[in-house]
This record gives sequence, structure tokens and C-alpha cells, in this order.
Amino acid sequence: MEKIGFLLLLLVLAVTLTSVFGEKGLEFPSHDGKDRLINLSKKNFNRFLKKFDILVVYFTVPHDANDKYLAKQWQLTEEMLELAAQITEREGVGFGVVDLEKDKKLAEKLDKTEAGAIYAYKAGHSVEFDGQRSTDVLVEFVLELDEYPVEEINSKTEVQGFRRDESTKVIGYFESNTASGYDEFVDAAHDFQPVISFYAVFQKLLARQLGLTELNQVDFYEPYMKKSIVIPGETPLDNTVIEKFVQEHKRATLRKLRTMDMYETWEDDINDIHVVAFADETDPEGFEFLQLLKEIAHIHTDDPNLSIVWIDPDDFTLLHDYWERTFGIDLSEPQIGIVNVTDADSLWMERRKSRLPTMAELEKWISDVLSGKINTEDDDDDFNLD
Amino acid sequence: MEKIGFLLLLLVLAVTLTSVFGEKGLEFPSHDGKDRLINLSKKNFNRFLKKFDILVVYFTVPHDANDKYLAKQWQLTEEMLELAAQITEREGVGFGVVDLEKDKKLAEKLDKTEAGAIYAYKAGHSVEFDGQRSTDVLVEFVLELDEYPVEEINSKTEVQGFRRDESTKVIGYFESNTASGYDEFVDAAHDFQPVISFYAVFQKLLARQLGLTELNQVDFYEPYMKKSIVIPGETPLDNTVIEKFVQEHKRATLRKLRTMDMYETWEDDINDIHVVAFADETDPEGFEFLQLLKEIAHIHTDDPNLSIVWIDPDDFTLLHDYWERTFGIDLSEPQIGIVNVTDADSLWMERRKSRLPTMAELEKWISDVLSGKINTEDDDDDFNLD
Repeated sequence: MEKIGFLLLLLVLAVTLTSVFGEKGLEFPSHDGKDRLINLSKKNFNRFLKKFDILVVYFTVPHDANDKYLAKQWQLTEEMLELAAQITEREGVGFGVVDLEKDKKLAEKLDKTEAGAIYAYKAGHSVEFDGQRSTDVLVEFVLELDEYPVEEINSKTEVQGFRRDESTKVIGYFESNTASGYDEFVDAAHDFQPVISFYAVFQKLLARQLGLTELNQVDFYEPYMKKSIVIPGETPLDNTVIEKFVQEHKRATLRKLRTMDMYETWEDDINDIHVVAFADETDPEGFEFLQLLKEIAHIHTDDPNLSIVWIDPDDFTLLHDYWERTFGIDLSEPQIGIVNVTDADSLWMERRKSRLPTMAELEKWISDVLSGKINTEDDDDDFNLD
Repeated sequence: MEKIGFLLLLLVLAVTLTSVFGEKGLEFPSHDGKDRLINLSKKNFNRFLKKFDILVVYFTVPHDANDKYLAKQWQLTEEMLELAAQITEREGVGFGVVDLEKDKKLAEKLDKTEAGAIYAYKAGHSVEFDGQRSTDVLVEFVLELDEYPVEEINSKTEVQGFRRDESTKVIGYFESNTASGYDEFVDAAHDFQPVISFYAVFQKLLARQLGLTELNQVDFYEPYMKKSIVIPGETPLDNTVIEKFVQEHKRATLRKLRTMDMYETWEDDINDIHVVAFADETDPEGFEFLQLLKEIAHIHTDDPNLSIVWIDPDDFTLLHDYWERTFGIDLSEPQIGIVNVTDADSLWMERRKSRLPTMAELEKWISDVLSGKINTEDDDDDFNLD
């Protein structure tokens, strides 16, 4: 998240119950009561950093103990962190808290100023957790971070699996996993794990199938793009070259909102505006609309001014009512619109005879958005096909 | 769930926080404090059944108010139900509670005896919610139930979407959506919504692409099977014929554990035993293992004694540590084993040189499981390839 000084947190209770009935094997855990959260300070930080494979740090500020609301928020946050710590303990993961006021020195050393932020420290790298504040999503993030940062591709089936991965991905072809270029590649992967996937291939035949013709070639894929971009530079590429390229190219023309990095995506708006598309991929009409969006993305892939955030409403059922009310739309049908992130003001493309727009209609709408003809500041001027 | 008289519920707090920062548009809701849960009785039940499009009913028994543990469980359950009721209120969904002791007459009328069970009543049908006890999963279930029970396929792209749906599915070819056979089909769909998807096609050309040659033909697809089974009977098929067929065939050779019906799947063991496979589909090796499992399922599709439960660990991160400890396995690699659901005792196929098993090795293991040579009662006789 951006450094904005202070994050006010509203909390929602989501209850997960374990049904203990005849059958066994699906018992959800509850906190066992053991305190695992460490009070971190400048004095003990390096010790705990060494002790754990991953150290997850929550940054906070002191709250007025008499403020019932804030006290409740903190209690719920603690429960989230304690349960996540319990579940990941055996993987060598530690959880700590840094008070931005009381542990000012440590906060300065870590260069952190934002209360409510969560960072994970691993192997000399730090990654922000900018996803949904719930135990399951935080645990997913930590478990994925705990894996080796590069996935090896060793068979034709694994090539298929790679092709099916439609998120942002990076792939390199190396002599072996001891090649110096590979080390640089792994180093770069650490900076993006687990949000962007890094793959490596060591077999010439598989590399060719993947379009990697030269040793030490590293390719970058935007989400939903079949064609890759070769990361330019003198090979073997330095980790900083890879990192810089990925940083500069990671805002995709079409990207899916994911619980694991939802806030990072949302904060990456263009002039306060997001083009947002709702489509349920498992619904035939939603699937069809998504294919249109992918075509649009193919056409506009080189336009830095277009980035469509695709939201599958099934991934965010808790936000269903909020979105329908705030945006004034029906989420049981595919929708596309623009959202102003400063006030959640929005404008949505009209559906004609409740059918999907044609490619031409969608292209026209997109170009009107890009030209500013369609904007959220001019609500009476709704887009109309007639 | 089976009727076992009383469900003891263990609850876990999962905290979802809304970060209210600069950007707007992703605010998670919290309970607004309004009581929406209805105390249902024999007297008022029909009135509320009429009032709501969907009535979700939680069955409970009185608890000792002095028992702090039970009081806390009930408080968390109420919070789950209240928030779900708030989120789905605008869709015409009501939430009620039936006390199995105090409202004995209503419980008898509804033929319910199990505390902790959740049923949804819609359009004269009732469907059990047998999924994870958390607000998001319950809301997902209700929202999917709120849609029309049959999806229409109207284009080639939608045919593609249908093919990509790898869950259990039923598809019918009808003259139009006013044909009598279609009415029966919709009626049958209501009994399985939202757990099993029903599709309909009205265009001859699209029907042919889907292998539906005769009007009123209804096909059933097991998960991961490219070939369908024509549901036998005199056409147009009566809803009871479709229902009976789906009931009898819904235990698939390979099925994915889903949060929405996880307990239903888990209770559907064969002689207390599940064959369980863990594979992370987004991991190259996990993807490859899943392809092996699909091949196995193709080969054994007619064997009623084989049903493999595939679990993608990413869908159940809260259970990660519990499974690793209980089963003694490493979930970062694909695993296959047998689990006894009476005591969670389990036995897992050994990995040789930490590589995936070959098809022949997997086939051998499966046949040893089916013959009883591999079983959880004989732990020292671990499967060994040597």
C-alpha cells in the first residue's frame, strides 16, 4: 500500500465452524491459546529474522484502551495473526508486531510508516502482503512464499500447465540450476514471490516449445497473452535488470482482482480511475464476455493507458451487496464500467436488450473512456448506443 | 449431512478487515446491528416461506446459557447468519432459526432432527447447505441458489464455456423454454442447485456440437469426462427420472473437494474409506499429477468402488497444518493415499526419488487399494515399490 500514515481498519467477523460429526478429516483449527506474536524491537529484530525462514511483521500504532471500537479491532487483528502463526509454525514462519511509535527506531530502520501494513521478510528480501485481511488469505500468501521462488518445468505436461497459467509470469532458459544467470533469476523472483510466478526450464527441447531459443533468455508474459516479451539486456541478465523490467511492465492491460493482492491492484489506478469488468467465468455469458475482454486486451496490449480490472464476483461474495448498492449494478450479469477510486463514483455501460455488447460496441466504449468522453464527473452524459 | 442427532460445532474466528485508505471501492461489510434472524415456528413458517424467494433455515437446540463455550459458539454462529442475511437481503433472501426442541412441531413437519444443519427453501424445493461454515461460503451458496437453475447455451463461445466446466453437469436439448420436457428439466435442476449445474440448449446446430442429436435428449457428465451418458427413459423425461439418475450417478470416479459442499463429499465415503489426492493445480508438478488422476478416472469410470477425492490445498489453507500433522505428509508435493473417516487414520503412497509415480505405478497402487491389499488397518504394510 502507499504510505499514507495511518490505516483505519474496519473489521468483519467471518466465522468458520468445524462440524465434528461422524466423519473425521476436515476439522478446522481454532487458536490453541498459545501466544506466538513477538513484540519486535530494534534489539531483537535480527535475532528473530535469523531464527525464522519467514518473519511476518504487522505494523501498528498504540490505541486508546478505552476506545471500545479500536480495542475490538485490535483483538480481531490479533486473532487473525495468532491463528495464522499457529497454522504456519511448523513451516518455520514467525509472526511479530512492530509498534510504529514505541519501536520507532526499528520502524525507521525498516523504513515503515504505515499502521496496518503487513510485510514478510525472507532470505534478505521483503514483500508486502497487500491482500484481503483474513486468516485464510494471509496463510495462503505465507505458504506460497514458503515455497522455492522458481518453478522448474521438466516435462511436456508441465509445459501445458505453464500455458494454462494466465497470470503475470516470467520464464527463463538456463544451462542448469547452478548457472550464474539462474542465480540472478532466482534473486529477482524473490522480489515478486508469491504475487508473480517465475518458471525455469533447463531442457533445450522444452525451451524451444516455449519459444526460448537462446540460453539465458528470459521472457515476460502479461496475463492472458500468448505472446511473450523477451526481456532485453546483455545475457546472462542481472537480477536488477529483470526486476526493473517486471516492475515497469506489471500493470497489465487485463488483470484479475485476486484476494491475495487486491489492494495492490486497486491502488494501481490510472488518474484515479479503474476500468472494471465483472464477469463470472463459470457462467456461459460471463465466460463469453471474458473472451471479449481478452480480445480487447490483445488489441490494446501496447497502450499504457488501458488497464482493465476483471472481477469474478464469486471470489468476493462478501462484497456482492456493497458493489451492487455502491455501483448501482446487477452482478448476476456481466458489467463493464469506470470507477473513480477517490469517491467510488462510477459509470457503467448500458446493456441493450440485456445482451452482451458486440466487439465493436465494446471497442467504441473503451475508446470513449480513453479519450475522456466517458467519465465519472459527468454523470448525466451516460454512454448510450442510440 | 447424515442425521446424527446432534452436531457439536467448534468455531474458528476468521477476521476480515477492511482497509479504509485513500482508495474506495473494496470496503468489506460488517454487521450493521439490525437483527434479521427470524424465530421460526409452525405458526409463521409458511408466511415467511411465501415472503422470501429463498428462506435459509438454521436448525439448533437450546444451550446452557452458563456454558461459556457453547454461548460463544452460538454468538459466532449468529454473527455468521446475521451478516449473510444482511448481504443477501436485497436479493429477497430471509434467514430463520428453528429450535429442534422448542419448535418440535415445525421440525417434525420439516422432517429435521440434526442441530447445526442448514437448509435453504426455494420454489417448493429444499437443498442442504453442507459446506464450510463461514460467511463467504454460505453467501456464495445462497447467491448461486438465487440464480435461475438452468443456464442457457446460446453461442459457440458458450459451448466452449460449457466444455471448460469440469464439475458434474447435466445438459438437455429442447424445442424451446416453453416445451413441457424443459419444465420437467427445470424442476429436476431445482433439486441439485447450486451443487450440480444444469444447462439447456435450444438451437439444433449448437445441440449437435454438444452431441445432442434428439430433441428432449438429456445428457449427464461425470467430472473430467469428455463423454456423456444419455439419461435413459421415454422422452420427454419426467423430472423424477432425471432426479433418480443424477442421484445414482453423482458419486464420481474423480471429484474435487469444494468449500461449498465439502461435508457432503466427505460423508460420501466407501466403506469408511476415501482415496484422497492432494495436488495444487497451479504448480507444474501438481498439474501433471492431476492429468494422471484424470487418466485413471477415465479408465475406471465404470467402477462404482473407486471414487478419488482430489483436494487442491490452496482451497483449504486453514487445514494445511492439520492435514500435514494428521496425515504425516508434505503438502508442498502431490500426494495420494487412503483415509479412514472414522479415525482419520491414513496411508500414503511413497514417493520414489521424490518424483511423481508413473501411470503403471499409480494403476498398481489403485488396484491394491481396491483389492484391500492396501488398507489403513495394517499400517506396517506400507506400499512399497521395491
